[in-house]
Amino acid sequence: MSVITIEKKILQKNDEVAQQNRGLFKRGNIFVINLVSSPGSGKTSLLEKTLLRLKDRIRIAVVEGDVQTDLDAQRVAKFGVSVVQVVTNGACHLEAKLVQDAISNIDLRDVRLLVIENVGNLVCPAGYDLGEAMKVVVLSTTEGDDKPLKYPAMFRNSSALVINKIDLLPYVNCNLDALKSNALRINPNLKVFQTACTTEAGIEEWSSWLECQTRKS
Amino acid sequence: MSVITIEKKILQKNDEVAQQNRGLFKRGNIFVINLVSSPGSGKTSLLEKTLLRLKDRIRIAVVEGDVQTDLDAQRVAKFGVSVVQVVTNGACHLEAKLVQDAISNIDLRDVRLLVIENVGNLVCPAGYDLGEAMKVVVLSTTEGDDKPLKYPAMFRNSSALVINKIDLLPYVNCNLDALKSNALRINPNLKVFQTACTTEAGIEEWSSWLECQTRKS
Repeated sequence: MSVITIEKKILQKNDEVAQQNRGLFKRGNIFVINLVSSPGSGKTSLLEKTLLRLKDRIRIAVVEGDVQTDLDAQRVAKFGVSVVQVVTNGACHLEAKLVQDAISNIDLRDVRLLVIENVGNLVCPAGYDLGEAMKVVVLSTTEGDDKPLKYPAMFRNSSALVINKIDLLPYVNCNLDALKSNALRINPNLKVFQTACTTEAGIEEWSSWLECQTRKS
Repeated sequence: MSVITIEKKILQKNDEVAQQNRGLFKRGNIFVINLVSSPGSGKTSLLEKTLLRLKDRIRIAVVEGDVQTDLDAQRVAKFGVSVVQVVTNGACHLEAKLVQDAISNIDLRDVRLLVIENVGNLVCPAGYDLGEAMKVVVLSTTEGDDKPLKYPAMFRNSSALVINKIDLLPYVNCNLDALKSNALRINPNLKVFQTACTTEAGIEEWSSWLECQTRKS
């Protein structure tokens, strides 16, 4: 019983800090997405492609969450954007306080878009508000079309779904229509994109949409 | 501080129940593996292929862990083995008590091999002993070769690594040698297999090894 109480307190405290983050982002006119997915869905590759398209059009900063390494931050830093690595030391998700600490290390002046790449985990990050404008869930076709049904919270709490690695569809057991229909059954409001970072398929559409969301925020 | 204490108590309690499970398995002469991975690595497909090879040679039972559905249990039940579905209702890992409750619903007489398929999550299940003889981590080539470095606890706590979907190597950005070397850097004792459920590559070797482990236990 005490466990549940503590857990509630953790989430309540997280929500308070998330609201502080949200206020800061609003005052700074910064559009923030929380990029979530399983390990290896291609979040970082998608981010690289997105940075390539948008970095000279809008000012972007990145917070990289990782259990142990700074490999992703190294990849992102090559694009010349501000990036902070948060290493959770084994913890399975980012929390609002970690983001708050991270962004205190970035110069947010003139930044219009902040991308928070969460730890690769399709379960736990669903429950943690970081102060973002929206969660964007990335799902690789290689993971199979049943995943929205098996991990519904993440799809319910996201505003957009990027179905990545569509170039692999001929080789994997994944029905794209079934995947979309399963996702929309969980959340009819999901904006759905289909991308492949190797072929650039869908990257233009996704990046343009993200730029529009940023400009209108 | 109280959170850490509670967390320790949870893990301590879990370990106690895991030891009870381990005693039960030992008395029953049952070899138990805890199959762990990211969502969509192909755990259930690997299990299907394994059951096809071994179900008429040794008596097998399965515990299926899932956040929300019983889709995997339905797939496994087709092979005529005893299977129990544990739905964690949003929780990100199986705990020993859930397994204890689950196996009380299976007739374990003559069962020699029990496969526990954990929730798809490369982080949290690493910390929870279920009473198994070993953890087996499945990693799909589509997830990339850096994953052992990024999620080290799971590779450190596993005895075997099944690199799955090797048929997709020509199409994905994954260096098999780098993947193996990264995994062995984290855990030099890992027994490594390479499989593809679509082509049956490596399935015989993996199944034979599992049968030997079971018979010698």
